[in-house]
Amino acid sequence: MLRPGAERVARLGGLHRFMDWRGPILTDSGGYQVLSLAELRRMDEGGVTFRSHVDGTSHRLTPERSVEIQRLLGADVTMCLDECTPFPATEAQAATSMRLSMRWAARCRDAFVPRDGHGLFGIVQGGVHPALRAESVAALTAIGFEGYAVGGLAVGEGQAAMFGVLDGTVPLLPADRPRYLMGVGTPADLIGAVRRGIDMFDCVIPTRSGRTGRAYTRGGVLNLRNARHAEDAAPLDPACACPACKRHSRAYLHHLFKAQEMLGPMLLTWHNLQYYQDLMRDLRAGILAGRFEPAAAAAQAGWDAPDDRAPEAAEAAA
Amino acid sequence: MLRPGAERVARLGGLHRFMDWRGPILTDSGGYQVLSLAELRRMDEGGVTFRSHVDGTSHRLTPERSVEIQRLLGADVTMCLDECTPFPATEAQAATSMRLSMRWAARCRDAFVPRDGHGLFGIVQGGVHPALRAESVAALTAIGFEGYAVGGLAVGEGQAAMFGVLDGTVPLLPADRPRYLMGVGTPADLIGAVRRGIDMFDCVIPTRSGRTGRAYTRGGVLNLRNARHAEDAAPLDPACACPACKRHSRAYLHHLFKAQEMLGPMLLTWHNLQYYQDLMRDLRAGILAGRFEPAAAAAQAGWDAPDDRAPEAAEAAA
Repeated sequence: MLRPGAERVARLGGLHRFMDWRGPILTDSGGYQVLSLAELRRMDEGGVTFRSHVDGTSHRLTPERSVEIQRLLGADVTMCLDECTPFPATEAQAATSMRLSMRWAARCRDAFVPRDGHGLFGIVQGGVHPALRAESVAALTAIGFEGYAVGGLAVGEGQAAMFGVLDGTVPLLPADRPRYLMGVGTPADLIGAVRRGIDMFDCVIPTRSGRTGRAYTRGGVLNLRNARHAEDAAPLDPACACPACKRHSRAYLHHLFKAQEMLGPMLLTWHNLQYYQDLMRDLRAGILAGRFEPAAAAAQAGWDAPDDRAPEAAEAAA
Repeated sequence: MLRPGAERVARLGGLHRFMDWRGPILTDSGGYQVLSLAELRRMDEGGVTFRSHVDGTSHRLTPERSVEIQRLLGADVTMCLDECTPFPATEAQAATSMRLSMRWAARCRDAFVPRDGHGLFGIVQGGVHPALRAESVAALTAIGFEGYAVGGLAVGEGQAAMFGVLDGTVPLLPADRPRYLMGVGTPADLIGAVRRGIDMFDCVIPTRSGRTGRAYTRGGVLNLRNARHAEDAAPLDPACACPACKRHSRAYLHHLFKAQEMLGPMLLTWHNLQYYQDLMRDLRAGILAGRFEPAAAAAQAGWDAPDDRAPEAAEAAA
């Protein structure tokens, strides 16, 4: 919206051409970004007004403008503009916020220009309150979307509360539409959410962790900055096919991070993305074979790395 | 030497295996690095004592230890330990420094373990003083090396003085051995030095420039941070085959640098290395065809980019 700007990206041929990315692109509505980045934001029935963190100028984001921006970018999947309800919130606050998002969802549906192969997803809100989540699902399914996201989670409520919301919400969603859990998560989060019927995720964890030296592996989470890797000639994850694992030792990756070489973040980001892709591939194969639980158990079986005996392991151990 | 340490790299199978690099590796002796990085260094006839910038511990680097370190790393080309004479220096200072380096060169020759396909290079010193450079060449050729480097340049003397030293030095070097100009340079530096008989270079310019948004192209030097690239759908260099040029626009590269995405440095580093490789390939082809000057002129013909009307263009324009 601000940088490089939707109209500019449109003039340059859209995001697919700009990035030279031939896969599908899902864009967020900007609502969460305004909430987390912008200063001096003001929410009203019509939309949100905020000051740019780039240059301090004032901007207005409405459901209609959000959908237009995503069309200009060339998104394959457009997300409805919603208000990401803060956590914690009272049930009354969560209800008010959710109902505003539902009115905005209807406006997004009206503003969206249908195109073959493109879709608009609605976002379920309602905090940790089962009745509000159910009300939100009913409102969205009455409008009708190409897919349904569960939003407002991974904001500090914890894995148990998040799974609780999914237990109550996912069964209410249409079984023939993709279900997308926004902003989640660790490998254990993914396994637990897939178990509860989620199909899609987005998260910074694999890339941000890769930049800071954390690797997700079949043996658990490793911190490559840890001195115990300094002489370790073993690969990060012997079952992984990524370049970090096929070409290099843990000692080399440790050295790259200690020396602040950008090849360290590059290799570890590649690895983490490969690990997440492999995990989802294995879970899909398990589902197709009618053997999800064995696939989930196999994915978690080796998670005993000592670097971070980790929140990720919570459900696995429970 | 300090991090990760030569013995550690040796235990991990040497640099080629550590980096998974199948090409030849040339290692520097550590002399220049001690001069430029270390605190509290003290030079004597036997070697140099310095304090580590990593942990403050004291270390001793001698000609023998430098050669041993490079053997432990698995270098294909080992460089003699020398003292990089500071610039400016009086002729007397340059003479004293050069003669110490020549005595160290003889000790490096004695310490070097001959192995098939591996070589030791001597380094010509003597500042900007022709008689000292000639004396240094005589000393080194009397010892005998697999290749000869010209050192002590690109330390602030300027391109004209550097070319002056090459004019006086390179003709004295054996024609059947590689001649290597250390720490140089810009594309114009390379062309001028190849014109004077240099075969090999090392320099941080293509990678460091790439990280900071400077691109060397057939059209000259571009600064991708410059706002005039923000809407430019053209490739960086239409004649270049690197991914930055084949897949993306200048506008995209500009965006990556403005947004501080690490993909910007990655793509521009790749491009600059490709440009340098292409330049040297074209110069080699010119030499083999007996048409070096047309090849040099063709390489410089397009250097009119407005971002940095550049010191690089000095010789081309002269």
